[in-house]
Amino acid sequence: MFQVLTLDNMNPNVKRVEYAVRGPIVQRAVQIEKELKEGVKKPFSEVIKANIGDAHAMGQKPITFLRQVLALCSYPELLEDNKFPEDAKKRAKRILQACGGHSIGAYSASQGIECVRQDVARYIEKRDGGISSNPDNIYLSTGASDAIVTMLKLLVCGEGRDRTGVMISIPQYPLYSAALADLGAVQVSYYLDEDKCWSLDVAELRRSLNAARQHCNPRVLCIINPGNPTGQVQSRQCIEDVIRFAKEEHLFLMADEVYQDNVYAEGCKFHSFKKVLFEMGPEYSSTVEMASFHSTSKCYMGECGFRGGYMEIINMDPEVKAQLTKLVSVRLCPPVPGQALLDLVVNPPQPDEPSYTTFMKERTVVLADLAEKARLTEQIFNKVPGITCNPVQGAMYTFPRITLSQKAIDKAKEEGQVPDMFYCMKLLEEEGICLVPGSGFGQREGTFHFRMTILPPTEKLKVVLHKISEFHLRFTQDAFV
Amino acid sequence: MFQVLTLDNMNPNVKRVEYAVRGPIVQRAVQIEKELKEGVKKPFSEVIKANIGDAHAMGQKPITFLRQVLALCSYPELLEDNKFPEDAKKRAKRILQACGGHSIGAYSASQGIECVRQDVARYIEKRDGGISSNPDNIYLSTGASDAIVTMLKLLVCGEGRDRTGVMISIPQYPLYSAALADLGAVQVSYYLDEDKCWSLDVAELRRSLNAARQHCNPRVLCIINPGNPTGQVQSRQCIEDVIRFAKEEHLFLMADEVYQDNVYAEGCKFHSFKKVLFEMGPEYSSTVEMASFHSTSKCYMGECGFRGGYMEIINMDPEVKAQLTKLVSVRLCPPVPGQALLDLVVNPPQPDEPSYTTFMKERTVVLADLAEKARLTEQIFNKVPGITCNPVQGAMYTFPRITLSQKAIDKAKEEGQVPDMFYCMKLLEEEGICLVPGSGFGQREGTFHFRMTILPPTEKLKVVLHKISEFHLRFTQDAFV
Repeated sequence: MFQVLTLDNMNPNVKRVEYAVRGPIVQRAVQIEKELKEGVKKPFSEVIKANIGDAHAMGQKPITFLRQVLALCSYPELLEDNKFPEDAKKRAKRILQACGGHSIGAYSASQGIECVRQDVARYIEKRDGGISSNPDNIYLSTGASDAIVTMLKLLVCGEGRDRTGVMISIPQYPLYSAALADLGAVQVSYYLDEDKCWSLDVAELRRSLNAARQHCNPRVLCIINPGNPTGQVQSRQCIEDVIRFAKEEHLFLMADEVYQDNVYAEGCKFHSFKKVLFEMGPEYSSTVEMASFHSTSKCYMGECGFRGGYMEIINMDPEVKAQLTKLVSVRLCPPVPGQALLDLVVNPPQPDEPSYTTFMKERTVVLADLAEKARLTEQIFNKVPGITCNPVQGAMYTFPRITLSQKAIDKAKEEGQVPDMFYCMKLLEEEGICLVPGSGFGQREGTFHFRMTILPPTEKLKVVLHKISEFHLRFTQDAFV
Repeated sequence: MFQVLTLDNMNPNVKRVEYAVRGPIVQRAVQIEKELKEGVKKPFSEVIKANIGDAHAMGQKPITFLRQVLALCSYPELLEDNKFPEDAKKRAKRILQACGGHSIGAYSASQGIECVRQDVARYIEKRDGGISSNPDNIYLSTGASDAIVTMLKLLVCGEGRDRTGVMISIPQYPLYSAALADLGAVQVSYYLDEDKCWSLDVAELRRSLNAARQHCNPRVLCIINPGNPTGQVQSRQCIEDVIRFAKEEHLFLMADEVYQDNVYAEGCKFHSFKKVLFEMGPEYSSTVEMASFHSTSKCYMGECGFRGGYMEIINMDPEVKAQLTKLVSVRLCPPVPGQALLDLVVNPPQPDEPSYTTFMKERTVVLADLAEKARLTEQIFNKVPGITCNPVQGAMYTFPRITLSQKAIDKAKEEGQVPDMFYCMKLLEEEGICLVPGSGFGQREGTFHFRMTILPPTEKLKVVLHKISEFHLRFTQDAFV
């Protein structure tokens, strides 16, 4: 039989794509879940998927106000119902008013509903102490991933040594490496400093850039702050240095700031790239080209399933902006329920509104819990010989370093696996805990890590941390003697 | 000032992308709407956007059952509310049960929620008279566009004369040409026969294929049935011929069947490519590689804003399928509210359930109205000298041919516009009606068309049809004498 489409003649860029967060280990986890359901005996009764930042899947409850408004938007007959608070109704009416035919089932403008973009701009202005934001520079998106891929797509051109290079941190969130492979762009890696709490050093940026210039045309610098998978929060000084570097070296800045509300460590604060840029004066604020990304999937709401998000673009050439607008129009519009949700996130209940107290209480509990879990994680892991764990200053992950014996490394090689994949696979089979190996994010050669979310409920997280600790001791002491 | 990203050094493929459905004419329409709001005097009081198949924006009411279940999924506290029928609650509970943490705010599997894929497979089996469908071959998507682009992406490879060619109809839905430009694939055009009600002729497919083989490697054949923008419904015989052709010529078939419920003309019937393929016997059903696409945006529900959809793949190489699964995982998952909606569309209320009567009534009214509007459109347009209009057998559009005088053509050239763009722009400025010029979809050289949706409510549609008719007479008789 003749096969039209085969591994040999399919898109070679797609073959190069890798995405460890949903890779082979997660596929095995799903399989094990099925086996458990079918009654297969395992040393555990459930699989705990700590591989992905999926708050609701880990038991976090949705924020009441958000869901009330979404229900009202979905079924406007409920606007007559006394059970819904007035501010929820007000928000729903405003969103519906802005929709074609007053229905969230209509397409929106491709850039997103205008009043939502206005609310996003106001949110940014408030966040950044009054620095102005223009709704025309806001593009709503299908989660942040969509906007990031769209921005990268605009930026990629050239062949051979002229091919666009994109600087990304190592460790990185593998959406970046996957998108670069897909687009056939050149990945230019710079390393975060694990010994200094995964901080970013301009000297390392410069080393990486100079090396890359030998073989490609680096034009873009991507930063994730707070960090994924590494959980660090960049200092204001560091951000200033990065902006200065981007200006000097003519780099387009992409600031992935989806964890902007997830900052836990004392003394740490989220500084948006936009705010720092504008505080550096017109020499910078009127020249440095930038896109900043945000999402409804993280922070306190964790509404991943709705695929809401936005990007703000700054100093983009108007002709390029027109091309961007054209490009997003091909996919018609981001999901409208996700746009509605984003509107509530950037325009939450105010102190004089009936939902304020409940909303603030729910929000505070989630963030306080996360802060507690961040602390716990660091504390417990650092007690284990062979695990070193930087403070989880922000975001939703820990990326601890694990020391593996030469025997374990050899054994992994024998089985045809990279060592941390081998480690995580064994942990999954023995304890039912699903993590992502550090190799899926990138790490300095000879070092090994894993990424774990801190999202499980506190009591369950404690169990997870202890199980991993025990497994680690077993793995390093007994397994390959 | 140094600009990093300019029109000259941005992705050249993106520059080549065009998408007329949301092109310059729609941008002008939005502007005019703003001017009207600001009190600028116009010869009309509202802009009627007949450019896009957006049912709710045109006043179609959402189907009650769908929205009740979506509200229940959004705010599960409503499951206690007596106002909601039991079958709506049952569906909502089943969907929530299948979501991580029982929340539509959790990510789903990247391929889509398993129970939704099962329901889709059952729907296809029922539609196709029992021919089996495997949920593993169903991929949920962010509208049909997303799945179409993903499939095309898998298929594109090679350079120069080996570059993948993709056969698309002319006229076509410009998502296809836009995606091909973006992917740098070669567009291979075959013409539909306007004189035979936009039918598809294998001789024309063969002509197009042979011509293309001189300069690229044609590997894919895309068919839209029922047709967009042309509204024809392919006969069973035609589909069989196309399948035979695809097998002989080793082409991967992409069947865009998003209008499968939108068939109006007497004697016309929707035949799915899958069903015909399997009825042709194992020689075909076990060899021809195919993907078929469907969406929640069209048919009787018209829920465009939710961005729901799916594709079914058939006879795909398992190794390629694994690559597909990996590729979709990078974007995490399609919007979960859209997945929930899709589940209701493929698993609607049954005769013994409380919502059945209302659901059927609402569905029937929408489809009967559309059938009436299809008939009206053809009738009124064909009375106008200089407009010829094929029957709108299915889908949601008419694509009438307009005869333009040499003077009008010259005048357009003077203004730097293609003639049908010039025509549509004038119509917009004078009558406030927004259509898409035929040039945005492709047409035989020297012929001119426009696409108009038949979605406005009947009374308004009549007004639109008459206004266009009068405008056409004015345009051809007086304007450029």
